[in-house]
Amino acid sequence: MNAAIIVAGGSGERAGFDGGKQLLMIAGLPLLAHTISAFELCAAVDEIVVVAHPDRADEYRRKAVEAIGAGKVSAVVGGGDTRQESVAAGLGAVSGDADNILVHDGARPLITPDVIGLAVEALAADVSLDGVVVGHPAYDTLKVVDAGRKITGTPDRSLLWVAQTPQVFRAEVLRSAYAAAEASGYTGTDDASIVEHFGGVVAMVQGPTDNMKVTVPEDVIAAEQLLRARLEGGGDG
Amino acid sequence: MNAAIIVAGGSGERAGFDGGKQLLMIAGLPLLAHTISAFELCAAVDEIVVVAHPDRADEYRRKAVEAIGAGKVSAVVGGGDTRQESVAAGLGAVSGDADNILVHDGARPLITPDVIGLAVEALAADVSLDGVVVGHPAYDTLKVVDAGRKITGTPDRSLLWVAQTPQVFRAEVLRSAYAAAEASGYTGTDDASIVEHFGGVVAMVQGPTDNMKVTVPEDVIAAEQLLRARLEGGGDG
Repeated sequence: MNAAIIVAGGSGERAGFDGGKQLLMIAGLPLLAHTISAFELCAAVDEIVVVAHPDRADEYRRKAVEAIGAGKVSAVVGGGDTRQESVAAGLGAVSGDADNILVHDGARPLITPDVIGLAVEALAADVSLDGVVVGHPAYDTLKVVDAGRKITGTPDRSLLWVAQTPQVFRAEVLRSAYAAAEASGYTGTDDASIVEHFGGVVAMVQGPTDNMKVTVPEDVIAAEQLLRARLEGGGDG
Repeated sequence: MNAAIIVAGGSGERAGFDGGKQLLMIAGLPLLAHTISAFELCAAVDEIVVVAHPDRADEYRRKAVEAIGAGKVSAVVGGGDTRQESVAAGLGAVSGDADNILVHDGARPLITPDVIGLAVEALAADVSLDGVVVGHPAYDTLKVVDAGRKITGTPDRSLLWVAQTPQVFRAEVLRSAYAAAEASGYTGTDDASIVEHFGGVVAMVQGPTDNMKVTVPEDVIAAEQLLRARLEGGGDG
């Protein structure tokens, strides 16, 4: 069985969202409710654990879970000071019989049931893999810089991918990587980097280009437009 | 004196823009006219060369140069099959007495005179540099993959920057790097990578987060919103 952890533990206030971004109304629903809805509607997902701002778990449950009748949500738990601690808190609430665990950013409300299902299938289809990450080839030219911002290299763009979420892992691999990271103090920028660091084999799966993360207030305009266009167009997910 | 090459030589039709993207009306003006206007209004820019789609140079001149009375535009020349060939065509039309040459993507209409001026000043302020590139630290987690899309590494994000434009170079350095690239067949993903490849020293300069490139049709919505918000707000550029 497959369990999803939706990480919405940050306050978002540092990025200019007074009162946080997860309950911001976008196209008629709180941002986080759009995200949870995609997992609720994905047949490949059996259980959902929401990691909320530690002071606001009840409010998140009421406005983003109960408001949409998301029956797969088994727990809404409070997050930690960092994303990694929030995911760890979510792992503690996932059922012990989960075979695979998906981790997804609450602030990526444009994810669709189709793409979630695609990621789960990609992991199931290749026994050599411990995990898969939804993303896309890098469009931007990236530069490696030194401490003085002088460019020391232009990596070959054809080998660079942008890592987004969902990221899907074999449950025992993700749990043991997180335990090892906690024991050693290792921190990674995403879940895959923690699994990679402790020897896991992870591959990229190509997702759509619009799976944006709402990070700064100007992103809300784009997310609203994209969600409205999808609702009006009948949608592909 | 400082000359700018605005590269608008691609058709954009492959990305889903019927009739090209450069003359698409956004917030009341053709996309390319917004871009040219920022350079026209920047006191640090003395000359502008526009590289247009080879079949449509007259139309670009009429609709994106004459329509806004851009008096600094000395030439509208036809581009080549690749971006690199288009920049080379622009270089051929830049006055011989230019001390510095700026290269900018026509499809980045949100650039402002302030940011262009900042880039010119950054190069002028450091004699050890051959060029500067406007961009910002990478927000996304990037992955290096192999041919099978398996992740082989997660580069340290704190050392990665996204390279945008304008990119500003000492004129003789840019001209000789382009000559060397043409002689050797070297191709780069941006102008800085060509200068870097032939030994030039280039640094990043931090620009704003909204200097987006209109690449796919959905980008037009975001560009329109951002330009309208700026026009209505009185603007910072």
